[in-house]
This record gives sequence, C-alpha cells and structure tokens, in this order.
Amino acid sequence: MSSTKIHALINIGTLHTFAGGPRRGEQLLDTSPIVNGAIAWDSDGRILEVGTEVEVRDKVSGGNVTWHNAGGLIVTPGLIDSHTHAVNAGSRANEFVMRCMGTEYMDILRAGGGILNSADRTREASQGQIVQVGRENLRRSLSFGVTTLEAKSGYGLDTETELKMLRAIRTLDETQSIRLKATFCGAHAIPREFKDNPDNYVDLVINEMIPKVADEKLADYCDVFIEDGVFTVDQGKRILEAGLKHGLKPKVHCDEIVPLGGTEMCVELGALSVDHLIVITDKGIDALANSETVGCLLPGTSYYLKKPYAPCRRMIDAGCLLALATDNNPGSSRTENLQWILNVACLYYGLKPEEAFSMVTINAAKALGMEGEIGSIEPGKSADLVIWDAPDLSEIPYHHGLSHVSEVVISGS
Amino acid sequence: MSSTKIHALINIGTLHTFAGGPRRGEQLLDTSPIVNGAIAWDSDGRILEVGTEVEVRDKVSGGNVTWHNAGGLIVTPGLIDSHTHAVNAGSRANEFVMRCMGTEYMDILRAGGGILNSADRTREASQGQIVQVGRENLRRSLSFGVTTLEAKSGYGLDTETELKMLRAIRTLDETQSIRLKATFCGAHAIPREFKDNPDNYVDLVINEMIPKVADEKLADYCDVFIEDGVFTVDQGKRILEAGLKHGLKPKVHCDEIVPLGGTEMCVELGALSVDHLIVITDKGIDALANSETVGCLLPGTSYYLKKPYAPCRRMIDAGCLLALATDNNPGSSRTENLQWILNVACLYYGLKPEEAFSMVTINAAKALGMEGEIGSIEPGKSADLVIWDAPDLSEIPYHHGLSHVSEVVISGS
Repeated sequence: MSSTKIHALINIGTLHTFAGGPRRGEQLLDTSPIVNGAIAWDSDGRILEVGTEVEVRDKVSGGNVTWHNAGGLIVTPGLIDSHTHAVNAGSRANEFVMRCMGTEYMDILRAGGGILNSADRTREASQGQIVQVGRENLRRSLSFGVTTLEAKSGYGLDTETELKMLRAIRTLDETQSIRLKATFCGAHAIPREFKDNPDNYVDLVINEMIPKVADEKLADYCDVFIEDGVFTVDQGKRILEAGLKHGLKPKVHCDEIVPLGGTEMCVELGALSVDHLIVITDKGIDALANSETVGCLLPGTSYYLKKPYAPCRRMIDAGCLLALATDNNPGSSRTENLQWILNVACLYYGLKPEEAFSMVTINAAKALGMEGEIGSIEPGKSADLVIWDAPDLSEIPYHHGLSHVSEVVISGS
Repeated sequence: MSSTKIHALINIGTLHTFAGGPRRGEQLLDTSPIVNGAIAWDSDGRILEVGTEVEVRDKVSGGNVTWHNAGGLIVTPGLIDSHTHAVNAGSRANEFVMRCMGTEYMDILRAGGGILNSADRTREASQGQIVQVGRENLRRSLSFGVTTLEAKSGYGLDTETELKMLRAIRTLDETQSIRLKATFCGAHAIPREFKDNPDNYVDLVINEMIPKVADEKLADYCDVFIEDGVFTVDQGKRILEAGLKHGLKPKVHCDEIVPLGGTEMCVELGALSVDHLIVITDKGIDALANSETVGCLLPGTSYYLKKPYAPCRRMIDAGCLLALATDNNPGSSRTENLQWILNVACLYYGLKPEEAFSMVTINAAKALGMEGEIGSIEPGKSADLVIWDAPDLSEIPYHHGLSHVSEVVISGS
C-alpha cells in the first residue's frame, strides 16, 4: 500500500458490490453480498480494496487510514439516474391538471404546450435561473441516493438557449456534488418557428448547434425524440451521425408511443442507449439483445402518462441489457425519487429487487458508457456509495414514496 | 379578546381554509383562498381568528400575542390519514417480492400469509416492539404533513393481542405529536384456529373482544373486513351492531375485491365510513350518496395490488361524500406518503388538486366523525396546519415521491 491517505468504511452489515460488469438475463439477480464487509479508497476517491472487514483490515492499516463506520447497515453502489431533464425552467403543474382531467400528453404538445411550453420559459429564463431550478432538483436526487445523473438540454430549441442549458449543466457539475453528464437534445421537439419545415430545423441542429456544442465541449451525448409527429427515423439518423462526427455518443428517445424503427437504427449506429421502449417491436428487441446498446426503461413515465409499461421481462428473457431511470422532467415524469422508480418497476415490470438494483447501478453506468468508472464497488472505480437505513434491498422498493438513504458518498467523500 | 396568551401566524401567501363543512360534488373544488392571510389561536391550540392579515391584526394585538411568520408560503389544514394499519409488527417485503413475481394478494392470505403472517409476528412481539414500529411510521407520516391519523388493530386475531395493539396505539397517542384515533379491527381475517368455524370467531369478537376493548376505552371505531373468503355481510353486521352497543362507531372495509352488499348494509347502520369501494355497485353508490357515510378511497392500494381504481368520479357525480387515505399497512399499501396518494388520486381517479385536498382535510375529518374539531381552518377548531414549500396546491400532487412540507403545527404547536 502507498503511504497516501486512505479511507476505509467498515462494519458494513451487507455489502452489495454489483461487481462483474453489466448484466443480462439471470445475471441481473446476482448480488453475491459480502457479510461484514469493508471498502477502502484513496484520497482521490478511487477504490483500493473491497472484501470482508477482516480481509480489508489485513490489507490497509497504519496511521494513514481514516476509519468510517457503516453501523452494520447495507451498502450498495451509488445510484445512477441515466435519463433526466432535471435542468429546466420549472413547473408545468397546470398541464398535469389538464392531463388528470383527460387531455393526452401528445395533444398538449401538438397544441403548442408541453415541451414547447418549457421551451418558451427556458428561452426567457436567465442561465442563473435555470441553474437554480437544477440545483433544487439535484439536491432532491442526492437525497434519494443518486451519485451520477445525466441531464439533457432540449428546452431551448434554438442555438442560444440550447447552449445556455448546457452551460447551466456545466455550472451545476462544478458547484454541487452529484457527478453530471450532459446530453445535447436540441432535437427534442420541432419549435414553432419550424413547424412547416422541420427539415430546416434538423439542418440547424446539424450545421450550427452540434458544432457549437462540440466546440465548447458542453455535452457527452446526443439525443433525438424519434416519435410520430416529432422527428422521423431518417431525421434522427442524420442528427445522430452528425453528433458522432463531433464525438457525441447517441442516447436516444425511441419507441415511446408509436414504433417507428428507431431502436433498430440506433443499435446499428452503436448508440449507448435507447430509452422508453414502451412499444418496442420484436424486431427491435432482437436488435437490442444482440448489441451492446442499453435499453433504458422509464416506468415512472408510463405511470405518470397512464400508458402501458415497456415489455421489460420479454426484453430480459431475450438477453437485452437494461437500465432504469426517473426521466425526471416537468411534463411526463415529475419526480427525483429513483427509489420510487424501483417500486413501480418491481410492481409493473415484475422485477425482483436485485434485478431492479442492477438496472440503476452497473447497467445504468453502461447506459452512460461509464461502466469502467462507476456503477459497482470494485478496485479502480470511484468510491460512490449509498449506506441504506433498511434491513435488506427488498425493503427499498417495498416501502415506497420516501427515501431510505442514511448516507451518500461520492468520489470518496 | 381574552388576556390569555395568543399565537398568530401571519404572512401566509395563500391560505386555503377548506371551511364550510364536508363537501360533495362541485363543492370539492371550493378553496376560496385568502391572499395575505393570518390565523390566530389560543394557548389551548383553539383557533380564534382567520382572515387576511389586516383583519386578524385588527382583532388580536398587544403584548400577549406571539407572532409567527409563514414566509409568504401557502397554508392548509393539517392532513388527515383516516385509514391506516400503521401500528404493527413490521415488514412483509418478502410478500411484495412474491406479488411482483405474479402471486395474488388474496392467494397469499389464503395460503396462511398476508394478514395472518402479520398476526403471527404481532402475537410474538412485545407491546414495546409494536410501539417502536408505530413510532417510526408516525414520524414519517408527520414528515408528510399528517396531523391526525386513524390506526387499526387487526393483526392480533386473539383477545390478548388485539388489546396489546390498541394499548400500543394509546401509548403512541400519548407520546408523539400526531393525534391518533383507534379502530378495533379484530375481524380483519379469520385466524387459523377458527378456519373451519368462522362463526365461532365472530362470537369471540362480539362476546369477548368488543366488551374488553370498550371497558378499557381503547377504541373509537369498529371495523370488519367484509370480503369473499373473509367475513360475510351478515357476520359483519352482527359485529358492527355489537360495536355500536358498546359505543364503537362503524368504519368498514367494503367492496374491495368482490361486491357483497357491504356498503348498503353499513350505510343502513349509519357507519362513519365505508372504505376501499373498488367494486362498489350502482346500488351501493346510490345508498352512499343518500347518506352521511363517507366513502374512503384508497388509490395507493389499487396501485400496489395492481387492481382497478374505485369509480371515484361516478361517486362524486352521484353526490357521495368521499375521503382519501394511505391504507399504510405491511401488505397491500406500504407508504406513509399521503402527498403521493394525492398524486395517484389525481392521475387515476381524474381529480383536480383542490378536490383531492378536500378529501384529505374536511372530508377525512368527517370520515372520523371529527368534522367539528379538525379538517378546516375555522374559529373553534384545533390549530392543525401545514405550511407548504410549494407555489400552489397543484404542485403537491404534480411533483411526487417526496414531501413538500415546510412546517407542521398540531394543536397550535
């Protein structure tokens, strides 16, 4: 061992490492818990040792070790929320009331509300105001055990506002503790100005927005809402290819309401993830199962829009890599509570708690292309941990609507 | 004004009093908010004055007034959770996992699990252990803005354990801040010992349990689970009539899975509430609408059991008095989050936020027979208040899975 400062978390009642890489099929169930576990990490927050407390104490000792006590509680990797629109210009509670009274989400969008409503407000808002909304949302995400979170642009729909959103995400990454990854999602809706010539908007996204986003290194990923009445598969492909040319990896809204073949196209492009998949076809499932692309499922959105649930078990059985996320956004899923997402996923996808946990840890890391850095508790990875005030993993989805977090560790602190 | 100590809460941005008594039909929408409101109460926690800040300052002043500042936030009556099993012997997460994998709730009960599982554990538990579980549950309920809560026995199913549960509820009422009301629910399931002669168990409930509960003044209400395979309407009627003779008012599980006519019978008995009502018939709705009995709806249970939702809008249109509650219990609805219940009710019953709030304030008070004491902010009632960290009422069901409470006041403190 080196002589640098070392931290060790001991007295972990049950340690679920989720080690061994992203999981398919029956592997999702593997938690191989370590009883009386411990974890040691260096001053950079890099994990050095994982094992029983006896094993870890054997390897790290001496005056340079700071000891932390988990009080016999259970520990998992920090949760990863791999699909959110958490940085925005605020509430659309009025549309929630309309939807409760029977108006359809897509009808609100077609009537110029929905994403376009958020876009109006985001254009008016200052970068500071967007940062403010994001900071509150991230504070809540942290309280639910989220240590890494993906946030998208897409409420600008013009170059200036898209850049403003991504700069807000960067500011937040630098000034609060959750590790943020940014997605450029300029093709989130067709702005009113381009209602009659959407291809011109696609050109703007490709020729102006993506190069500027890449120049400022403001995003890691590129997203398109491929949907009936929004962007076609061909438009999506053009945008995603342009993104790839500029180093932005595809992470895409597909097969949410009408199946258009988006999943198949995105798999072919080597997308990191295809997200929603409520209406994924057999062909789509087959393509996904034979790929390294992750299907990111958003059961809270099905609940919130009163839509069917994605055929999760069929996808697991077919061998797809799957993740779960909140989709936290002002219109179709207004919650930061990734623990509640575990509840709705277990109940409505028919998942065991261990499967659902695999899908918000190591598989969610894969959905961000970060499976080498986060998502499990293994030497070399970042010490991102949740200490849970719960007797076992099952209690967390079972007892819902609140947070079971006792403590969160990000990058070792 | 008297010269006793007075407290005044001023700088209330928007004050929703829910005054004017229990509500039916379009009255559910009436919030008549007071802008720049204030509330004054005496040292017993009894409300003296309600109005604009100018009006209240005009009526209370001088050195005997302690001023509190609501910071411009919104204020409502404290929430009332009028149907829970919050005092029990703990987790049934294992059955949650079975249900996620496809086993039906009633099949778990028939196989000797479910309520019988909780009964085994409650019989083994000491009164102190039950108090401990209850205390944790109530601490969480308080964090969601609940100021009055009904808790049932019913995991004893023998005289000794039923009394132990009710004594635990009494201890909790005396040692934590939520106002508790207790329901004797000995007829919650047929215990294994009486599997082959349920009428003998009914006799035990009537001849031994109810008199002992009444002697010790341990309960306010009497409940029966009237359901196919549990208790018949006739058995229920015998038990409820025995309860009435001993001063216990009927509050009853009816029409949850199979409609048996329980609602009609309970209305005839003058029950305070009939609860669940997922499968209520037209005849049941008609009986309810023409009565003072409250239909207490439990949408979180429909969600958690993946069952249909009660026909709430039809009942509103028919003129029924309706309340909402969590049904917090270890098997069919494991949440203290009454704010989340507002979310599922708005979405899946098609309610406006104001309607849902009426159903957890003044109408929930009526479901407990306490509409003269709590449930609205009016002179003479208890100063039970929630100060909300939300821009308006809609935000609370809209943004779900967490608590929007800033501060809770119970009996003026």
